Amino acid sequence: MAASAPKVVIVGTGFGGLEAAKALRRAAADVTVIDRHNHHCFQPLLYQVATAALSPADVAWPIRHILRDQTNATVLMEEVVGVDAEHRRVRTTMGEIAYDYLVLATGATHSYFGHDEWAAVAPGLKRIEDATRIRRSILIAFERAEATADIVEQGRLLTFVIVGGGATGVELAGAIADIARQTLAADFRRIDPRAARIVLLEAGPRLLPAFPPDLSDYVRTTLANAGVDVRTGTMVTSCDKGGVDTSAGRIEADTVIWAAGVVASATAQWLGAAADRAGRVKVESDLSLPGRPEIFVIGDTAAVFYGDGRPVPGIAPAAKQMGKYVGQRIAARIAGQADDRPFRYRHLGDLATIGRRAAVVSFGRLHLKGFIGWVFWSVAHIYFLIGLRYRFLVAFNWFWDYLTFQRGARLITETEPPRKTG
Amino acid sequence: MAASAPKVVIVGTGFGGLEAAKALRRAAADVTVIDRHNHHCFQPLLYQVATAALSPADVAWPIRHILRDQTNATVLMEEVVGVDAEHRRVRTTMGEIAYDYLVLATGATHSYFGHDEWAAVAPGLKRIEDATRIRRSILIAFERAEATADIVEQGRLLTFVIVGGGATGVELAGAIADIARQTLAADFRRIDPRAARIVLLEAGPRLLPAFPPDLSDYVRTTLANAGVDVRTGTMVTSCDKGGVDTSAGRIEADTVIWAAGVVASATAQWLGAAADRAGRVKVESDLSLPGRPEIFVIGDTAAVFYGDGRPVPGIAPAAKQMGKYVGQRIAARIAGQADDRPFRYRHLGDLATIGRRAAVVSFGRLHLKGFIGWVFWSVAHIYFLIGLRYRFLVAFNWFWDYLTFQRGARLITETEPPRKTG
Repeated sequence: MAASAPKVVIVGTGFGGLEAAKALRRAAADVTVIDRHNHHCFQPLLYQVATAALSPADVAWPIRHILRDQTNATVLMEEVVGVDAEHRRVRTTMGEIAYDYLVLATGATHSYFGHDEWAAVAPGLKRIEDATRIRRSILIAFERAEATADIVEQGRLLTFVIVGGGATGVELAGAIADIARQTLAADFRRIDPRAARIVLLEAGPRLLPAFPPDLSDYVRTTLANAGVDVRTGTMVTSCDKGGVDTSAGRIEADTVIWAAGVVASATAQWLGAAADRAGRVKVESDLSLPGRPEIFVIGDTAAVFYGDGRPVPGIAPAAKQMGKYVGQRIAARIAGQADDRPFRYRHLGDLATIGRRAAVVSFGRLHLKGFIGWVFWSVAHIYFLIGLRYRFLVAFNWFWDYLTFQRGARLITETEPPRKTG
Repeated sequence: MAASAPKVVIVGTGFGGLEAAKALRRAAADVTVIDRHNHHCFQPLLYQVATAALSPADVAWPIRHILRDQTNATVLMEEVVGVDAEHRRVRTTMGEIAYDYLVLATGATHSYFGHDEWAAVAPGLKRIEDATRIRRSILIAFERAEATADIVEQGRLLTFVIVGGGATGVELAGAIADIARQTLAADFRRIDPRAARIVLLEAGPRLLPAFPPDLSDYVRTTLANAGVDVRTGTMVTSCDKGGVDTSAGRIEADTVIWAAGVVASATAQWLGAAADRAGRVKVESDLSLPGRPEIFVIGDTAAVFYGDGRPVPGIAPAAKQMGKYVGQRIAARIAGQADDRPFRYRHLGDLATIGRRAAVVSFGRLHLKGFIGWVFWSVAHIYFLIGLRYRFLVAFNWFWDYLTFQRGARLITETEPPRKTG
């Protein structure tokens, strides 16, 4: 690489950032990829880490290993704290990094709708650490219930509330029901894990609003048959250590999981740019920042629209399409080629799983549900995992769990043992 | 189980405690197994978690799952804080638990020879959390070296010191050499991971003192060929954030791992019992506490001797033999059978691996080394894993790593990104 090659800096290595880096692999560019973490997290399967079916390392892979053969890319594990757009520099906790082109792909995090204090009692699911925290919380609740003689406290410990009826909420509720009804059924002596209460709260009128109504109905029925108490039209008004208050009364619960909303990362503040209500940066039709054609914002931290003006959804295929588009666009500009195609999002479809042997798939006119949906979901997810090793390991774990009803990663780590609470 | 069945309480679920519980499976006893963690940790492979070859869940399995079919056993995740031997009660953070027979199998932890402050900079390797901490420390050192332009600091970051030349120290040194020379070799752009310096310090005259001298020599040569700087006869006199001081001078290092000594758990204090220098409880020939025939102390927290008065080593087979003996003895007493055989330790042999394709095995007159030793070591460890699932997953990971030189669990979690230090 010539020292004078244009410097492309990519911040964030989710689906968008990684795809942008890969699209630059043949460009005469000096690509620097920066992330706070050393790993790319395959978020669509993160709920399986949170519910002890997979290990963190099954769904998170070292970024520098993914890019090891792309010799024009350097990976740095640093935290970005700001952008000096005037002097074209990214500020990190280690210093400053100059760029000619900048791609910001820093994603989104949970939104507690102005109640950030709820984060302490109702964790969301975005990172590996969130997943192990939720796993710990679920498994510890059963352990504490077995250790206490107080039956009121047992009931509270065995109540699990999931806030938000989108794909993550549905997947978590289904998986926790599987844990209680099947995985742990024979493992306790004093409590019956099958008596656990799993409550799924959704403020809107139906689950999975992105899906067609018939699939929403199917999901609701399937979850109800698995023992999940589904409550649509129910808003959470407050969360505390003992449970949640909702528009339809209080629920005493030890475990509350937040799957209700997201807010964009701090990109808009770094840039001093205009943002929408969810904090997403308003971008041009080529995903560049207005007035700064060398800065691109992609993925969950960008406000992008398609078709009749609907927002591009915050899902992996959308981020990948944006990453690929921007990477190719920068490569073309470096090569001196004119390319003025705007970004066009192509919605492939939606998938969600509902525990063992059931999933819903909506790909245009193709609607699948039940076992056939689950097979489609499984094959699609295995296919998108990176590398043969992980495809094999994840497939083996699913196959084994399917046969045995077990879950291989039921580990409680980094915690204090339970203490008497009352 | 009749309510009047004798109560057997087992504290600790390492190899000893678990084996004691299993030996009681047909006894007319009410067995309660207590541990601070929800999992049994397969310590012989913990160094592979610390060096990113296996995931925590590959070597740690839920205790209650292992004992799920043993209906006379109840598993409680609680922390024991004392024993009231007079009233036959165990005190935990949740309350008190009565016993008729008590088995204390609480193991050992690292000993810093009176310098507990070194623990903060030189972690040891006993629990899952220790392993993920060491993994993080090793991987972060390479990341920080890539991110800094200061070549002195790079040298310090890429120096790894392992204190103690027993099996754990040798295994860690070999594995870190593999990571630096092979796994990471092509993953960085600014540093050459192969330039990493791995120093193995041993105060005594040779590595692996439990093995025959010819195998010690072989291990030393093999490690030296892998690029490990082996220094026998070298004592650590001080540890700090910047490195270690030794009897032969200072070594600047970012990562220092402690594999030099162990001290028994607090069992002797709980009992007010006589202990040896390492804190191990002095027991009768049947492993019971002098004057308390209903209390047994086993595994690394007991001082037991064999043959010509040598101490029983702190290895898994020894703990398992003690656990089985005590479980059977209690079962016999409950059944009203006389059984006065004293405990007799049978030393099967010693094994240690030295990274890829090399291990040493000493089983009586059978001495194996090199590739054939490594095959023997691998088969033996796979065999002793619990359950087909884990045997398969560990074997697959080893096979894959063997073919590709990769390591599947290179995750840095629960950490802050690097910050500028100087």
